[in-house]
Amino acid sequence: MKLKVGILGATGLTGAELVRLLLRHPQTEIVWLSSETQYGSAYEKIYPAFSGRLPASARMLTNMQAAHGTVPDAVFSCLPHGASAPAVKPFLANGKTRVIDLSSDFRLSDEAVYGLSEIHRERIAKAKLTANPGCYPTSVLLPLIPLLKAGLIRKEGIIADSKSGVSGAGRKATEGTHFVFVNENFSAYKVGDQHRHLPEMRAQLGAAGGAPSDLLFTPHLVPMERGILSTIYADLMPLKTVADAEACWNKAYAGSPFVRAVSDFPQTADVARSNECRFHAYQPTGTSKLIVVSALDNMVKGASGQALQNLNIMFGLDEALALA
Amino acid sequence: MKLKVGILGATGLTGAELVRLLLRHPQTEIVWLSSETQYGSAYEKIYPAFSGRLPASARMLTNMQAAHGTVPDAVFSCLPHGASAPAVKPFLANGKTRVIDLSSDFRLSDEAVYGLSEIHRERIAKAKLTANPGCYPTSVLLPLIPLLKAGLIRKEGIIADSKSGVSGAGRKATEGTHFVFVNENFSAYKVGDQHRHLPEMRAQLGAAGGAPSDLLFTPHLVPMERGILSTIYADLMPLKTVADAEACWNKAYAGSPFVRAVSDFPQTADVARSNECRFHAYQPTGTSKLIVVSALDNMVKGASGQALQNLNIMFGLDEALALA
Amino acid sequence: MKLKVGILGATGLTGAELVRLLLRHPQTEIVWLSSETQYGSAYEKIYPAFSGRLPASARMLTNMQAAHGTVPDAVFSCLPHGASAPAVKPFLANGKTRVIDLSSDFRLSDEAVYGLSEIHRERIAKAKLTANPGCYPTSVLLPLIPLLKAGLIRKEGIIADSKSGVSGAGRKATEGTHFVFVNENFSAYKVGDQHRHLPEMRAQLGAAGGAPSDLLFTPHLVPMERGILSTIYADLMPLKTVADAEACWNKAYAGSPFVRAVSDFPQTADVARSNECRFHAYQPTGTSKLIVVSALDNMVKGASGQALQNLNIMFGLDEALALA
Amino acid sequence: MKLKVGILGATGLTGAELVRLLLRHPQTEIVWLSSETQYGSAYEKIYPAFSGRLPASARMLTNMQAAHGTVPDAVFSCLPHGASAPAVKPFLANGKTRVIDLSSDFRLSDEAVYGLSEIHRERIAKAKLTANPGCYPTSVLLPLIPLLKAGLIRKEGIIADSKSGVSGAGRKATEGTHFVFVNENFSAYKVGDQHRHLPEMRAQLGAAGGAPSDLLFTPHLVPMERGILSTIYADLMPLKTVADAEACWNKAYAGSPFVRAVSDFPQTADVARSNECRFHAYQPTGTSKLIVVSALDNMVKGASGQALQNLNIMFGLDEALALA
Repeated sequence: MKLKVGILGATGLTGAELVRLLLRHPQTEIVWLSSETQYGSAYEKIYPAFSGRLPASARMLTNMQAAHGTVPDAVFSCLPHGASAPAVKPFLANGKTRVIDLSSDFRLSDEAVYGLSEIHRERIAKAKLTANPGCYPTSVLLPLIPLLKAGLIRKEGIIADSKSGVSGAGRKATEGTHFVFVNENFSAYKVGDQHRHLPEMRAQLGAAGGAPSDLLFTPHLVPMERGILSTIYADLMPLKTVADAEACWNKAYAGSPFVRAVSDFPQTADVARSNECRFHAYQPTGTSKLIVVSALDNMVKGASGQALQNLNIMFGLDEALALA
Repeated sequence: MKLKVGILGATGLTGAELVRLLLRHPQTEIVWLSSETQYGSAYEKIYPAFSGRLPASARMLTNMQAAHGTVPDAVFSCLPHGASAPAVKPFLANGKTRVIDLSSDFRLSDEAVYGLSEIHRERIAKAKLTANPGCYPTSVLLPLIPLLKAGLIRKEGIIADSKSGVSGAGRKATEGTHFVFVNENFSAYKVGDQHRHLPEMRAQLGAAGGAPSDLLFTPHLVPMERGILSTIYADLMPLKTVADAEACWNKAYAGSPFVRAVSDFPQTADVARSNECRFHAYQPTGTSKLIVVSALDNMVKGASGQALQNLNIMFGLDEALALA
Repeated sequence: MKLKVGILGATGLTGAELVRLLLRHPQTEIVWLSSETQYGSAYEKIYPAFSGRLPASARMLTNMQAAHGTVPDAVFSCLPHGASAPAVKPFLANGKTRVIDLSSDFRLSDEAVYGLSEIHRERIAKAKLTANPGCYPTSVLLPLIPLLKAGLIRKEGIIADSKSGVSGAGRKATEGTHFVFVNENFSAYKVGDQHRHLPEMRAQLGAAGGAPSDLLFTPHLVPMERGILSTIYADLMPLKTVADAEACWNKAYAGSPFVRAVSDFPQTADVARSNECRFHAYQPTGTSKLIVVSALDNMVKGASGQALQNLNIMFGLDEALALA
Repeated sequence: MKLKVGILGATGLTGAELVRLLLRHPQTEIVWLSSETQYGSAYEKIYPAFSGRLPASARMLTNMQAAHGTVPDAVFSCLPHGASAPAVKPFLANGKTRVIDLSSDFRLSDEAVYGLSEIHRERIAKAKLTANPGCYPTSVLLPLIPLLKAGLIRKEGIIADSKSGVSGAGRKATEGTHFVFVNENFSAYKVGDQHRHLPEMRAQLGAAGGAPSDLLFTPHLVPMERGILSTIYADLMPLKTVADAEACWNKAYAGSPFVRAVSDFPQTADVARSNECRFHAYQPTGTSKLIVVSALDNMVKGASGQALQNLNIMFGLDEALALA
């Protein structure tokens, strides 16, 4: 029997990406779609790409109460930060539904398991509430956590210089997403220590390395739809080399189909529309610096793909189902 | 002494383009900027490209009354359709100020001269109110009017299939201007007879050809910032050829620095940021069809550049001043 | 047992798209990849997106002889026009292999069945050699053929104004594919009657309408990777309306999962990465014109997707296998 | 009397940008254009944007000998690295012509003055041969040199993470400039210490700070035509703050119209098509890190604009002539 799944905030970009992925998933059935801003609209009108492809069960609800009156096996919340926590509470309270929250509302909370699939797989499997990681943190944490755990890099002085496509800003039309202001433009924002993804990065790196981290993080906006590339600068511990880092990653991710050290610097197009996170490291000649370039699709491994991977893990399915 | 110039709706995209052009103009002085949506903001904050480049006189007013209390030599209105007519009326009434209106409010009205510079130059020179043409009409009318006047093409059955960059949609953030929905997408809209630029095209073609026109017009949205390319299908009159069309254009535009038949199909990048409209025609073998491809920059010859050209004409300056 | 499939010209853009689609196909096995320009290279080096995803059988051959020494069930040729015919001849001669040729080498030839899947399904099913249609012709023919067959539109005076993404120009680096010359640019090329796709369009329309066609066709280049949108102008026969056209399409494509008249003008993003061709028509008020807007992904329904659809048809598989 | 100017390598992207700028320059006259790859072509055919805008004097030569037979006041070389040095030698030998070389051939040589205009203005004024800086170095050196000279930042541990539009790769068509591989893609290349611009950066920083530098530099490719944004991480010296850096820049660049610390992080679009380099710094709370974001147009201040600025300086003209 298929898992019954509901989606809160289904009309946003991560909601649409999730619908796209779920349509290929043989073990789930969308039982409703919900949208704070477009209650009752036909989903196919909002996203014509789905025209003729949605099952009858994937109807848009007319209000949140209609969602709260149901007891699906799983609920994904693609609602904005702040709106998500109150909306998922009734599901957490019904004693049956398990929740995967794509907002940042629970990422620093003890109530939830942090859903970085490859790092917390065992705890996710048992989680009632999974806090799906941010897109930037996923790209930064996956390469760094094994290195810190293995003591290969210093925990101080790490710099993550990240670049993201525009879909990370969501579906709301603003000057920051206006074609004329984004196209033929490249910009930094929330420089250094100002982005809301930084606390979750620091918390997870701290947990991996045994001490609070002074990580710096500068996000940038790239004139493209999707993709994140993070260029990470760290210091190798004495006598450690880039070869040690590669060996560490190969071991850490041996059983993980979506995370991989590759033999050359990955580009965002290499992983577009896939659930992979790829990285490659370089040690400049005569230095003890380790420069890691990490790439993923912010809408997939950085959001909806990892959310579905977490659902697979939570319900004992093949982790790669509908994602390979 | 320099002409004193005010700009209504200065914070929109055509307003900013006009400011950019006026900064190069040696015979004008911006005396105020006005904005319905951002009264009192620093213009440099809205458009950082102008940081450090605006003269002190180019201050943003805090309300429309402040504008109406002045008597500049010229006012450009870059306000939206509907808002422009009431805003320019007080200037028209003061007996001194001459107005160039970039909205569609006066394009079909006897109150104004239609500001297609090369076609109505003499009347524009004397105009108190010039209705600056739409971007699409400029690209379609400039090649067609001389052909119709010369009787080289049939006035029936003309089809204009036009393609425009996104800046034509203005500065307002909507789903239609959201990077994620525009990039990697191409679409038609207001197909056939539904676009608000069609009446002014039909009126002008009618005036040139002696009869109402059944022109069809389909605009499309191109994932780029600026540029319009119109592909126009017409029928040559018996015994007329593409060579006749070229000779006609060469004669009609002999003294016009910005309008020209060129020797190959123009591309939008050829005329980007210039005030030129270029076109080239082809007659498919064995047919009496004339296919004209016309290109211009929708923000310059399609809007603010032509507006400045009209100011030059209205005040007896070199038509190409600040535009070549 | 799986069908053994070889790909000639596998390193071009249509080759890569075909590999992407075949990786999802449960009834085929790639037995070799071949490339005139990169014999012996590792396919994953050329297209890192496939890194770790190709089965061992999908090895690049070191020369054409190695391909000709095998007898696969099917060979796809993604070779350029002119190079394809000689390369597929040995397979046609071996008495077993069936060939799907994506070049234009056989599209006007009696040797092959024209592979417009929905129109020639029965003949494709028995074909030994299928000539896969061009991308532009697919977008133009699918809406027009049923209308001509049903006598709803005049066969004279049809104009197809088409716009394509850059992938249609292939993988070869030229000025015409250089980012700096393509981005922020829109252009027409091979205007009116000069494009090599026109003869196959005229041949197929002629076959559908009973008379040679005087179709005009103007292709344009859009600054995006993939997608074709064709805006088609035709004349309705007396008393016929847009409603008749819609009814005609609904009937003609009732059993076809990938071709559909939709309720609003399709955009290229609606069908990106899908095998669908969607269209919608409009009849301008007071006219007998029919304006059809047709959209497809030039790399999928316009090339590799339709090629795979044809393989499914030729081997009696579900037509939509690996394509839905 | 106007300066007679020749351009070697005029058909490349920097050559075309230089032609564009020179057309506005009242004190120069292009006396010839030269191109290794397209000798004798009409420049207007290669760059249709210039159609009808070039003076008769700006003819393309038919061979290098024709250039070497002339004695212009100034020669710009836009030739590739390696080809430039031998081509400019005859001009340097004629005793009259002064040369501005945009290649890297002389940037580390005692024969030439390094043409970072604001830093070496006095020496450039007297130079017979100016080595125009690389685009990346200009964006990194302008903010860093005053800080190093003033002892505000540590000379060790500086990291420059730079991002450039595609025009930096030049006009040659390669896979790296193919629209399909650049669009919707972001990538790092020549990571850490591998880019050929690094030696000139290290040399200039060394000269400013009194010691060899261990600068790390990672360039990235952005899917846009033009613009460079460099995100620079440095360590403030004890007790120094971001306010000291700003004061230092204001003083250092007080008389420089094109270089400026601005009040917010600059974006590449802010300086597109201008000769400006803008930067802004931030000190993350509780740290002694200084993060500088620097923006310029790689084709203007990063290449042809700075070259023209250097010509103005060399010939005693207003530094900003044709550039403001």
